[in-house]
Amino acid sequence: MPEILTLYTAKVCPYAHRVELALAEAKANFKRFEIDLAAKPEWYAPKVNPASKVPAVAYGGPDVPADQPSSESTKIAESLVLLEFVADLYPSANLLPKDPVKRAQARFFIDAVSTKFNPTYFGYSVTGKSSQADLIKAFKDIQALLPETGYAVGEYSIADAAIIPFISRLFVGLENDLGLYAIGEGPKTLELIKTSPELKRIQQYIQDVTSRTSFVSTFDSEHIKEKAIKRYGNLNATRATSSQ
Amino acid sequence: MPEILTLYTAKVCPYAHRVELALAEAKANFKRFEIDLAAKPEWYAPKVNPASKVPAVAYGGPDVPADQPSSESTKIAESLVLLEFVADLYPSANLLPKDPVKRAQARFFIDAVSTKFNPTYFGYSVTGKSSQADLIKAFKDIQALLPETGYAVGEYSIADAAIIPFISRLFVGLENDLGLYAIGEGPKTLELIKTSPELKRIQQYIQDVTSRTSFVSTFDSEHIKEKAIKRYGNLNATRATSSQ
Repeated sequence: MPEILTLYTAKVCPYAHRVELALAEAKANFKRFEIDLAAKPEWYAPKVNPASKVPAVAYGGPDVPADQPSSESTKIAESLVLLEFVADLYPSANLLPKDPVKRAQARFFIDAVSTKFNPTYFGYSVTGKSSQADLIKAFKDIQALLPETGYAVGEYSIADAAIIPFISRLFVGLENDLGLYAIGEGPKTLELIKTSPELKRIQQYIQDVTSRTSFVSTFDSEHIKEKAIKRYGNLNATRATSSQ
Repeated sequence: MPEILTLYTAKVCPYAHRVELALAEAKANFKRFEIDLAAKPEWYAPKVNPASKVPAVAYGGPDVPADQPSSESTKIAESLVLLEFVADLYPSANLLPKDPVKRAQARFFIDAVSTKFNPTYFGYSVTGKSSQADLIKAFKDIQALLPETGYAVGEYSIADAAIIPFISRLFVGLENDLGLYAIGEGPKTLELIKTSPELKRIQQYIQDVTSRTSFVSTFDSEHIKEKAIKRYGNLNATRATSSQ
């Protein structure tokens, strides 16, 4: 029987969203504490996560208010470590398959998200190091890992929770043209991703993952849009200046 | 009962060494196939690992010679995915603890190796982006994760298999002064790591891990030294030139 679990998270953060998805899928009983990333509570780094990032979990120990974390609970950080932790803690939720080969495929998928998909997303949206063609290729490469139907390894798993927070935030950014690409390119890129016949399989996959209750109940697109406008306003200003 | 497992590996490669360690600890029955990284067989990328890297595993399918891989076996790549795979495949080897919290701690340790320790190692030895002080701090940070005695999470686990291939190769490099640091600095840095009273705990840890049969039977320091001299000869030449 799992002990008391407090999740320190932030709606805007895709890494934290991964863990919220896994907990929602597991129908876990947990306390959710929103951290304002722009004004973190002073107790957060010393008492919860020395790296001062979300997500982090306090597990076990006495039942204390989330903003008064106990030294007796175990603190765990890093989104991928936490995805595995939730899968281990709630085995009946089947967040990883039982078969070692399928488990390896789930982890290989997650590795591809970390080392290939996400760098291209950030390269396209934030640093300008990846082109639209690079981004489309990143979607194709993920698509190539998907089975013919269903989720990343058939049944829903932590692999799906690992990727969808990033795809969904990319889509909000593109829709609102918030990124270091040419002005007006965002919505066109989004249209391409959503309608290209070459991306049919991953379009269905995104539809499948985002229509689950776990996603619908944890994704606040208006909030993310607001935060993204604040954060990436500078990128727009940069583009406006450089295009004059 | 595990099926036929073929490991494609290279003695010189720390990533591949991780998996050899885990398989040795599990006393697994497997075929070992050495890939010459300087002259990879032409069948390797198309038939085993499209990324053309080691380690990779062919699992299941018919019993075929390693250099004639069957399309019926499952191919799995990425060293950390494979560490988990070996742990899943041989549960009685206890390569991960049963307790979800301790499993999370093992994975957090591995994450620290990937995102902090190894970048500093490469920064010091290969790119010149990390100083001797950075390297010593990287050892201290890993040391801070160790329990008072024993291995990374108490009993031996894949966390230990994840770090020791890098530490052992760093030591060969330092001993032979093969890196982008000042000429003569390598052996001094090695002496510091091995004798500093501030690193007492990790010195013991390294001693513990490297004296296990799994390490002794899989680590060929002479071979690694030869390969390192070939590979990093250029770094020495660069330094010799720039110090004139």
